[in-house]
Order: sequence, then structure tokens, then C-alpha cells
Amino acid sequence: MEETKIYLSEKDIPKQWYNLAADLPTPLQPPLGPDGKPISPNMLEAVFPANLIEQEVSTKRWIDIPKEVIEILYRWRPSPLRRARYLEQYLKTPARIYYKDESLSPPGSHKPNTAVPQAWYNKQFGIKKLTTETGAGQWGSALAFATNLMGLECKVFMVRISFDQKPLRKIMMKLWGATCVASPSSETKAGRDILAKTPDTPGSLGIAIAEAVEEAVLDKSGKTRYSLGSVLNHVLLHQTIIGLEAKKQLAKVGEKKVDVIIGCAGGGSNFAGLSFPFVCDKIHGKKIEIYPVEPTGCPTMTRGPFTYDFGDVACQTPLLAMHTLGHGFVPAPIHAGGLRYHGMAPLVSQAIVEGLLTPRAYNQIKCYESAVLWARTEGSVCAPETSHAIACVIEEALKAKKEGKKKVILFNYSGHGIMDLGGYDKYLSGQLQDYSMSEQELKESLESIKNLPKAPVKKTGKW
Amino acid sequence: MEETKIYLSEKDIPKQWYNLAADLPTPLQPPLGPDGKPISPNMLEAVFPANLIEQEVSTKRWIDIPKEVIEILYRWRPSPLRRARYLEQYLKTPARIYYKDESLSPPGSHKPNTAVPQAWYNKQFGIKKLTTETGAGQWGSALAFATNLMGLECKVFMVRISFDQKPLRKIMMKLWGATCVASPSSETKAGRDILAKTPDTPGSLGIAIAEAVEEAVLDKSGKTRYSLGSVLNHVLLHQTIIGLEAKKQLAKVGEKKVDVIIGCAGGGSNFAGLSFPFVCDKIHGKKIEIYPVEPTGCPTMTRGPFTYDFGDVACQTPLLAMHTLGHGFVPAPIHAGGLRYHGMAPLVSQAIVEGLLTPRAYNQIKCYESAVLWARTEGSVCAPETSHAIACVIEEALKAKKEGKKKVILFNYSGHGIMDLGGYDKYLSGQLQDYSMSEQELKESLESIKNLPKAPVKKTGKW
Repeated sequence: MEETKIYLSEKDIPKQWYNLAADLPTPLQPPLGPDGKPISPNMLEAVFPANLIEQEVSTKRWIDIPKEVIEILYRWRPSPLRRARYLEQYLKTPARIYYKDESLSPPGSHKPNTAVPQAWYNKQFGIKKLTTETGAGQWGSALAFATNLMGLECKVFMVRISFDQKPLRKIMMKLWGATCVASPSSETKAGRDILAKTPDTPGSLGIAIAEAVEEAVLDKSGKTRYSLGSVLNHVLLHQTIIGLEAKKQLAKVGEKKVDVIIGCAGGGSNFAGLSFPFVCDKIHGKKIEIYPVEPTGCPTMTRGPFTYDFGDVACQTPLLAMHTLGHGFVPAPIHAGGLRYHGMAPLVSQAIVEGLLTPRAYNQIKCYESAVLWARTEGSVCAPETSHAIACVIEEALKAKKEGKKKVILFNYSGHGIMDLGGYDKYLSGQLQDYSMSEQELKESLESIKNLPKAPVKKTGKW
Repeated sequence: MEETKIYLSEKDIPKQWYNLAADLPTPLQPPLGPDGKPISPNMLEAVFPANLIEQEVSTKRWIDIPKEVIEILYRWRPSPLRRARYLEQYLKTPARIYYKDESLSPPGSHKPNTAVPQAWYNKQFGIKKLTTETGAGQWGSALAFATNLMGLECKVFMVRISFDQKPLRKIMMKLWGATCVASPSSETKAGRDILAKTPDTPGSLGIAIAEAVEEAVLDKSGKTRYSLGSVLNHVLLHQTIIGLEAKKQLAKVGEKKVDVIIGCAGGGSNFAGLSFPFVCDKIHGKKIEIYPVEPTGCPTMTRGPFTYDFGDVACQTPLLAMHTLGHGFVPAPIHAGGLRYHGMAPLVSQAIVEGLLTPRAYNQIKCYESAVLWARTEGSVCAPETSHAIACVIEEALKAKKEGKKKVILFNYSGHGIMDLGGYDKYLSGQLQDYSMSEQELKESLESIKNLPKAPVKKTGKW
């Protein structure tokens, strides 16, 4: 019988990241400043170190992974490629389902794949401290993990409601030496202003980003920068190690062709990490269906327009051409905290416009139903975000059964849900709400972008 | 460079368990009934299925692992053998430190290694439902995981204080289809009696065991049995897959000799699982230091006498010859819930008497200090129980450095601590207490066994 777990030797870990910007048929539209004019890379230098800005704007196809970064990644990489044999048997599908297990990193998700190189490049640039925001805590703990290994300081602004409700994530950051404060805090002007107006606010990612950026930019030593866990080009770049490993592992078990690629998408980084090396194959002629999956409670790709929008609620970031629900979007309290972002990575968004990707949306009840089936067949407890990918996988596996096709399905198991079991409890008790976005809610949410510059929907269709 | 993670192909998974009873120089002393006379195996049949009782009393060296059990274990086995290279570098030790990563099972510890075969043998015997107790929740969730895969019912009596304080473990059991009730409950006579006397009791393992056994024994259908997660011979037997895999993995990287074996020991099962195949080598002439490690707050092996005692507080079980603090032992609230048991597996106890093992004890402050160093070098968050093994590993690695010896140290990474971060928080905040047992406490605790039959301390010393 074939192995359930397909490992790669450490010496076969990819030595370069893949940059989709080199192959995307239509180049990305430029980020715009507050004046509506394209910004230049050096305008970002107060926020990010120059070596990461260079990656952000690069159109080189392959970018070397520093040896020192690889040495750190060995703690959990190459991650196993696994065959979901037990789910296949339950579904009686002829499809072969494979998944990259990104839940095995110490913080429990794919996030450290970029936290580690980001911390490393900052250190190379002479930076001593990183600031960031975190919602549910996955990104904050990944950056704490990485900065600890690199000997950098780390300060995480954690959205107040998560800070109070998720004490475990907070302790994890502390364990790795980071300082974690509830946002809004009294430590920044942005925080103090909000607290003065609404002392009881539960906080938001928008506020936390504002605080983290302010603390980085205002540090007079010039040795502090800000770090982001998704959306940006260099973040997606770092995640492509996932898909590059998967290719080698599939080859190892003799799989010559992948038919379907699936990943959940919030800011887009875990999805891009797995899929971009295959998107490259698709651009060069291979027939692959590629599905980024989102919640119907935050339907950025399936219902949001492709246009210019801010990355944050406070309108501090450059304008990016992307799918968006509008930066004024107030997310419903769905459990998949990592999928509650109003925008989508520009690279993923442009690939959707090009027709390379086919977004799908599922409501969280169906997702938890899928996650419970997963836990009761494969055994493991997936993150609420990952359950969206699994819902799509099950649908595709049943479709293959109906069609009698021996398809190969590959998806990204982006993280475990051991610290997020609350949503499972609600589902199992029949208390979980759907929270799909209504037409009215969408209309109201898009109000926030009506006066912003429009991004032209450009596509070549040539691939 | 050598690999950090050493994998074993699934086809190389051990096909038999190793039974130390076949090689132990002095045979185990017989379990005694309430009348002080040896009990016969069939007296256990209301509690355990006959096929597991057969394993419990077997002195066969090798016992086949059923193919169907192996097929289930593939979900996480063979577990990786890992090199703790980053800790080695930090300590600047010439020792090579290896560990079996048992934290990768879906419930997060070594426990399912026995939960799965126990559920399987019960099913083979026609049993429909298993009952058990759980303290911190590791064992309860492991049995829930196993019974779910086998289509058995499962009822877990969870100590009230853990039931209230550890909601995540409770949800995990529910996710795998088990019923989990707080103990004492109103569902058994034992529980009702306690509740009538002390309605506000936080509960105890002793009470929970009494409830679980009662529910199994009183089921009139005869289709319910009780399941225990440690201490018993057949439980230790199932865990030997850990050490057997480790041997193959060490051979794979050319390690011909192991100098030091370390595992934490509460009831003894994870320690035995790793060490017994090496204890066999020691009996047959190899020079190996083998350290079971316990908390100074529950110093069963280092300070408890070897004698007959009950396995539970309610004196319902047979009397076992073992190291014990007395069944009346009231454990201090140390965080390593799995190491708070008053007794020790008879097989481990007899091996200590024989001088094959050298127990050690550490206080929990030193253990958390070690766990934090581990998290900040190797990256992962270990269980509070596992931290005891790590404290000993660090001590041995530093000893090897002092002696300038290239020792090979192997230990069992028995579980992750992601759901138990509270103890880390206390340590990091300087609020952790020592809780080492005082002379007076020991004296009082041993009161509960003063009228029980004495077990003669028998040893051959021939090995």
C-alpha cells in the first residue's frame, strides 16, 4: 500500500522561492499614494526594510532563500505531504486527496514560513524590533516565534476582544519573548484617541494596524519596523515553499498531474503559497482547476469588486488594486478570524481577474460540518480557516465520484484548530449561525470605496 | 549535515509489541484481592475484556499488533525521531540528543498508542461501550478519538475541577463523539454519595475511577467495559511501539549505541513505551543509563516505598506491588496533571527494584525553566509532564559537556502543551510554586497503606 505520509529529505528543501509576478500575464497595477499617484518603493522605507521592499516590487522569477533561513525552517520543514486516505474511504471517492500539513510548525500554521524570513531580513538590515498586529493570534505568535529565534524585540498589538477571549495565544507570544498588548492601547496616539472616544471598544484589526505602524514609524532610533502576515507580494513569495515542496513530494509518489488545487483565502498567503507554483504551470498550458475558498460571511473574491482600496480601516496604507468589500467592512463574528479581511492579496486578485483562479464561498455551518467529518475520519482538528478548504475538497471529491474520475486533489491544511475549539462546540450544540453577507450589507460596506480611484480590470486571457 | 527529523517508512512500523515481563529477572508479584489472596484473571472480566486480560498476564516476549490497529496508527505513526540540534547548539554539548515526537497524534500525546488497541480488542470482544476517567483530559480525549474510529460509545468521567477549567479538552472529546460528564456526577451511586456529602467537591481521579468502573460493571447488557490509560501491563505493552520505532530510526542514522534514556513517569506508560526495549538490551548486557523522571511534588519512585497498594483512592482495584505514596495521597496542584498519580506501574516499579532504572525527581520550577529554554531553542511548546524529561535531558547534556563525552541521549517527547499554557504563564510571571513534598506530608500520605499486606522487595541483580 502507498504511504499515508510523504516526507521529503531536508536536503531537498527548495532553495528558492517562486515569484508569480514574473509570469502573471498582466502585471500588477501600481500601489497609489493618498494623492492617487503611484508611490515609489522608497516611500515605504519608514515601514519596511529596504531588502523586503526589494522583494515586494521584484519581478524576478526565482529568489534565493538564505541558508540561515533554511536552517531555521528545518524545525518543521519540509512539511509532510499527506494522503487523506481515511476521508477518501469514507466518501468512497475515486479521487486521490493529498494535503500539505502546515499545522506542524511550532505556532501551528503556515504563518512562520514568512515570519522567519521577515525577521531575518529585518535583522540583516540592522533592525532591532518589529511591531505587528494580530487578530486571533496566529500571526502574532508566528512573529514572536521568529523574532525570538533571531534575537529581535517584538511587540504585538492584539485586538482587545481576542486579547480577552484567547488567553492561550497571548501566553504563547509571551513564551517566545514578545510583548503583547491589548489594542486599542494607551501606548500610541492612535490608541489613546480611540480610547478617549470609546473606552469600551472591542478593538479591530484596523486600529491594531494603526497602532503597530505608528510605533514602528515614530521610533526615533530608526531601528523599528512593521511586519505584515499576509496580502503583500513578499509575504506570498515566502509561502511558495509550500507548493514547491508539494511538487517534489507528488513526484516522489509518481503523481504526474494534479487536477484540482484548493486553499482557504483570507489575505491570500496560504492559498498563494500552495497554488502559485501550479498557477505557473497553468499559465504555461497545464489544465488545473484552482479554487481559493472564502466564507460567505466575508465574500471578498466572489462578491467584492476588483478596484483600488486601502489595506486598513484607518486609510494609512497605500491604495492597492484588489478584490475588496471596502475598507469600511465590518466583519460578522464568524469563527474563521483569519478569513475576515476586507481585501485580498493583489497577486491573487489579479490572477482571479485573469481567470486563472475560480473563487468559491461557503457558509461556516457547512465548513464546520466538513471539519467534524475530517476529525472523525482523518483524526485531526483543523483550524476554522482550514475548514473552508476542506468543505471544497469534499465537494470536489464527491463530484469526482459522480463523474467516475480518478482526479488528484491537493489542498493546504493551513493550521490546526486546537486553540480554537469554541466554534466546534457551537456547531456540535447546534448554536452556530450562518452569517452569510446580505445584499444590503454588501451595499453598505462598499460605500467606503465609492470615492476612491477605480482600478481598470485588465486581463490578457493569454495563457 | 545530518537530518533534524528522522522518518521511518510506514512499511517499517513494528509488527509486534515487546513485553518486558518475558525478560524481567524477577517476575511481577501477583495482584491481590481484598482478602489479601492472589486474584485470578477471570476475576477481572467484569471490568476488562478477556483478550486484554490475556495480554495483562502474558509473559510472551512478542505480541502481534493486529493489522487493523496498524492501519489506524498510520494516522501519525511511525512518529518522527528528531534531533534536538538547536538545544545542543545552545548548550554547547558534545552529546547528541534525540527524541521521539509523540505530540503529533491527533489528541496530542502518546495516549492513543494504547487507546486504539484497547478500543479494537474491546470491539473484537463484542463490547459496545467504554467508560473511563480523565484528569487533565489527555487520556479522555485519546479514548474518545479511538472509540470514534471504532464506532464504540465512550463515556468519560472528568474530574470536576478540570471539567470547569479545561473546556478545550472537553470539546475535543465531544468532537470525537464521546460523552463527557463532570465527576462526581449524579449518574452513579458513587457520584451521588459523594455529592450528598460534599456537593461542592472539586472531584478527584479516585472518585472518577469509581464512577467509570461502576458504570461499566453495572451495565446489564454486559456490553460495557472500563479502560485505563496507564499503569497496567497491557497498557505499557502497547506503548513499546515507541521504543521499537526509535531503535530502527537510530540504526537508520548510524547510531550504534544509546547511552542515556529519559522519560517522564506518572503511571509509567510513556516512559515504559520508550525505554522497555532498551531495558531488554540492558538486561542482556548493554550499558545504558535509564532515568524515569517524576515531580518532587509527587515523588512516587524516589521516596515512595515498594509495597502493595490499591490503584485508586476508593480501594476498588486489586492490590498491586509497586512504588506508591499511598492511595490516600492528596496531590499538590502541580501543573503536570499526568504525573500526579500516587502509584507507579508494577513493571516499572519492579525494574526499579532490580536496579535497571534510576528514578529522578525535579521540582516544577526547574521543569518550566527547561520547557521555556526548549521553546526558545527547539521552538515547540511541550506538555508540563514532558518538561520533567527535558529538565533531566539538559542536566545530562551538561554533564556530558563537563566530561567531554559524545554521549547519545534519547528521550520521549510525550506530548505538546498547547492546551496547557497556563503553567507557562505562571512561570513567566514568577508566580509558580515549588510544591515539593515535605517529610510530614509523606508520612501522612503513607498512613493509608500501613495496614495493607507488604510486598517483599525481591531482586535477582542478575543481568
